Amino acid sequence: MGRERRRRGGGRSERLAARQDSAVAKMVQPLHNVPIYEIATEEGLERIHQASMQILSEVGIAFYDEESVAVLKENGVEVRDDIAYFDPAQVQDLVAKAPSTFTQLARNPENNLQIGGNRLCFAPAYGPPFVHNLDRGRRDATLADFQNFVRLAYLTPYIHHSGGTIVEPTDEPVESRHLDMVYSHIKYSDKAFMGSVTSGENAADSVKMAEILFGADKIRENPALLSLINISSPRRLDDRMLGALKVYARARQALIITPFIISGAMAPVSVAGTAIQQNAEALAGIAFAQMINPGTPVIYGSFQTTVDLQSGAPVLGSPESQISLYVGAQLARRYGLPFRSGGMFASSKIPDAQSAYESVMIMLPAVLARVNFVLHAAGWLENGLATGYEKFVLDCEVLGMLHKLLQGLDLSDDALAMDSIRDVPPGGHHLGTPHTMAHFRTAFYRAELFDYNSAEQWQEEGSLDAVQRANAKYKKLLREYEAPDLDEATDEELQAYIAKRKKEIKPEF
Amino acid sequence: MGRERRRRGGGRSERLAARQDSAVAKMVQPLHNVPIYEIATEEGLERIHQASMQILSEVGIAFYDEESVAVLKENGVEVRDDIAYFDPAQVQDLVAKAPSTFTQLARNPENNLQIGGNRLCFAPAYGPPFVHNLDRGRRDATLADFQNFVRLAYLTPYIHHSGGTIVEPTDEPVESRHLDMVYSHIKYSDKAFMGSVTSGENAADSVKMAEILFGADKIRENPALLSLINISSPRRLDDRMLGALKVYARARQALIITPFIISGAMAPVSVAGTAIQQNAEALAGIAFAQMINPGTPVIYGSFQTTVDLQSGAPVLGSPESQISLYVGAQLARRYGLPFRSGGMFASSKIPDAQSAYESVMIMLPAVLARVNFVLHAAGWLENGLATGYEKFVLDCEVLGMLHKLLQGLDLSDDALAMDSIRDVPPGGHHLGTPHTMAHFRTAFYRAELFDYNSAEQWQEEGSLDAVQRANAKYKKLLREYEAPDLDEATDEELQAYIAKRKKEIKPEF
Repeated sequence: MGRERRRRGGGRSERLAARQDSAVAKMVQPLHNVPIYEIATEEGLERIHQASMQILSEVGIAFYDEESVAVLKENGVEVRDDIAYFDPAQVQDLVAKAPSTFTQLARNPENNLQIGGNRLCFAPAYGPPFVHNLDRGRRDATLADFQNFVRLAYLTPYIHHSGGTIVEPTDEPVESRHLDMVYSHIKYSDKAFMGSVTSGENAADSVKMAEILFGADKIRENPALLSLINISSPRRLDDRMLGALKVYARARQALIITPFIISGAMAPVSVAGTAIQQNAEALAGIAFAQMINPGTPVIYGSFQTTVDLQSGAPVLGSPESQISLYVGAQLARRYGLPFRSGGMFASSKIPDAQSAYESVMIMLPAVLARVNFVLHAAGWLENGLATGYEKFVLDCEVLGMLHKLLQGLDLSDDALAMDSIRDVPPGGHHLGTPHTMAHFRTAFYRAELFDYNSAEQWQEEGSLDAVQRANAKYKKLLREYEAPDLDEATDEELQAYIAKRKKEIKPEF
Repeated sequence: MGRERRRRGGGRSERLAARQDSAVAKMVQPLHNVPIYEIATEEGLERIHQASMQILSEVGIAFYDEESVAVLKENGVEVRDDIAYFDPAQVQDLVAKAPSTFTQLARNPENNLQIGGNRLCFAPAYGPPFVHNLDRGRRDATLADFQNFVRLAYLTPYIHHSGGTIVEPTDEPVESRHLDMVYSHIKYSDKAFMGSVTSGENAADSVKMAEILFGADKIRENPALLSLINISSPRRLDDRMLGALKVYARARQALIITPFIISGAMAPVSVAGTAIQQNAEALAGIAFAQMINPGTPVIYGSFQTTVDLQSGAPVLGSPESQISLYVGAQLARRYGLPFRSGGMFASSKIPDAQSAYESVMIMLPAVLARVNFVLHAAGWLENGLATGYEKFVLDCEVLGMLHKLLQGLDLSDDALAMDSIRDVPPGGHHLGTPHTMAHFRTAFYRAELFDYNSAEQWQEEGSLDAVQRANAKYKKLLREYEAPDLDEATDEELQAYIAKRKKEIKPEF
């Protein structure tokens, strides 16, 4: 009878109880408990470092923003024709002012993130204007899609960060959609999120909304926003990105400073040449942020991929990118900075075998290289032009596996299991031993979406491929999703701010 | 006009010229030019070693073969109830007699293989009774399928070894199909191959055929056969495998000695416990081979996967297997032995995203761990129950990428490309620089089967997924395949031997 009542709905306490039944799996940032894979020798790394110092001092980096040039000059940097020529010692002193680890606030304090050191953080794909799913293929992304991905990221314990522009909400005016995105991150998730970087004004809106949510003082102690400043390689910071950078640094919000490089197009065709240029560019941006506000938390970012010299298109998941990633992580460690890279990269248009091969080819190295912040850890398709629903939940299965991998090798007496080896006779089995019974629930990671049945049973169940299963899973997740509670007064204040700003912005079209 | 004639067929010289046009891409075993990834500390490895020595001496390994027990006893090993209790010092002395590297002969001497050290060797899937393709799904494998896979392995430069039972030719009598398999490897490829291990008699047939092909003396200098002896864990060598082992060791043919372990079933549920048992078993087999014939070339093998404790089915591509693989490779290096592992493992029934995620999750670690002989490097599906045509050619694309990865980081002056970085202005591009022009042909590996076109062009071309493209590719390869020349007298002698043996074997059914 109680069951009957519950099924029909019931009162508040019953809804609460039901919610607890379907509680969101608690996320835990994995601790990197395996050796770090490094590809360059110490001498090799020093060679790249020295070469990039030479680029900084002799070749220079362009800053296309008047106020930024003034800041550089105030700090004694020589600037000629917008190109800043840096003193390597000064750059290194400035870079040293950035903390090696920091905490990013989440509105659920249990989801606060530790960025740097031996902690990893996985964030969704960022930037695609399209979405992809099995039912409709590829189409323009909408705000509803954006919110769906925020929900999916909230529901999985293997994504630690709500991300930024998971998809572009192309149905909203370009001048104000940043407000909708930041609000959606706040409303539909309680994980940490990224701010807008499309202009200084939009960055200021992001900071204001974070202040409403957390309090202006609180976000100066620990950043509530972590935002992605791309350097437009080769050797160029534009006014849009510098505008956002200045706003965030002044508000002491965290930055990822990432040269965005397709080798062969924006940098030399070689991994080493790319690393040198990337390092000079990243350090210029990081040093500049420290001039604006010493101590600004900064992540050293790398986005390196290769160009298909037949078609001119980017190639994601390449072996050369993998080597670049290892080098980038080593450079960031050399400067005592947290490191960001991709990700479940794919050139494939759909979540097929190609996309999966490509994705692990970069994601597994990211984990072995101890990347602290993995952007594009789920959903990426089509060179970053589309975020896929099925790709997102499939990638999350692999992220779960990687959480397990990062626990490393247990060599405790219990793990050695000598008694079990002794007790089971030749040709016997370990299925029911006390050791197996004590550990079988946690011994092996089980990917829920991967099929481990016999071929016969798999056929009986409809011979579904991974994408078909993923299609059913993401829909179920969205159907059963419940938004985390948000304080009503805060919500109203956020909505009022957005309404006011949308009026002020008055889209041109 | 000349073109016209060629298209119509033409004479022998034109056929030869055409053959040279479509020459088989030359294979080159990759040299491991990147750091080796190791997961255990020296102390950790020592702990596993010591524990396995304790298993060898106190718990013992069963040898279910009278002659083998006699050999053990002659060598002073204590045997009670078929269980051999080894002296750890003696085991290590015996293991030290196996060479750390050796050459396996191929009938094309250019394809001779170096096994061990910094060289890697990739071999196809081994053992499946089924084949899978897009057109017909999963079905019983035939000899025609077997021969097709030999052809595909011959045609790709990224598979260095013709392998063994790529699929079971289930349309041939079980008692004589080993003759058909060995002959097919010889006839349709000129790469090195494996011998039969299903019995001592079948091993003797394999040796005889290798003697016909290479000469009896020649194969005593360098082995022509490399054969897979699986230890049936826990702690048991059966008469079939011991029978084959003895024949090969006496003929000085190379062996891979591999405990076949699904953790949680054939060994403890922990990686460490599995490693201890695996190490004891592998060393027992390797030491025994050295008792038979000191100096027999042996590869230390590991096949470790986990059990799905919900269904009892094996799970391939798991994070635990990845850790096991790293530990196994370290153990083999500790004993100065070449190491074998998987592979492009997959539990998936079809070459979908699941199978690709799973495959790279083990194959990439195999490469980073410097596995010398990768069995199941292409084609594996359904926990090893099926070899897939499309999976085979897709896996080969990733093997190509891994060849590139293994070249490592080039830090030559030319690779640093300082002049290029200097010459391209901020916001410029590197597409036409002298450095790019000098290197663009070789700078980046291009996976032929992976699609790098725009979504629009991909749609125009039919929106094919990776498997559909792979289907077209393997069919094209088979259509255009031409067998490498085989000396006619040798061919006749081989065929006569097979005919004689088939008469003698007289299948029971």
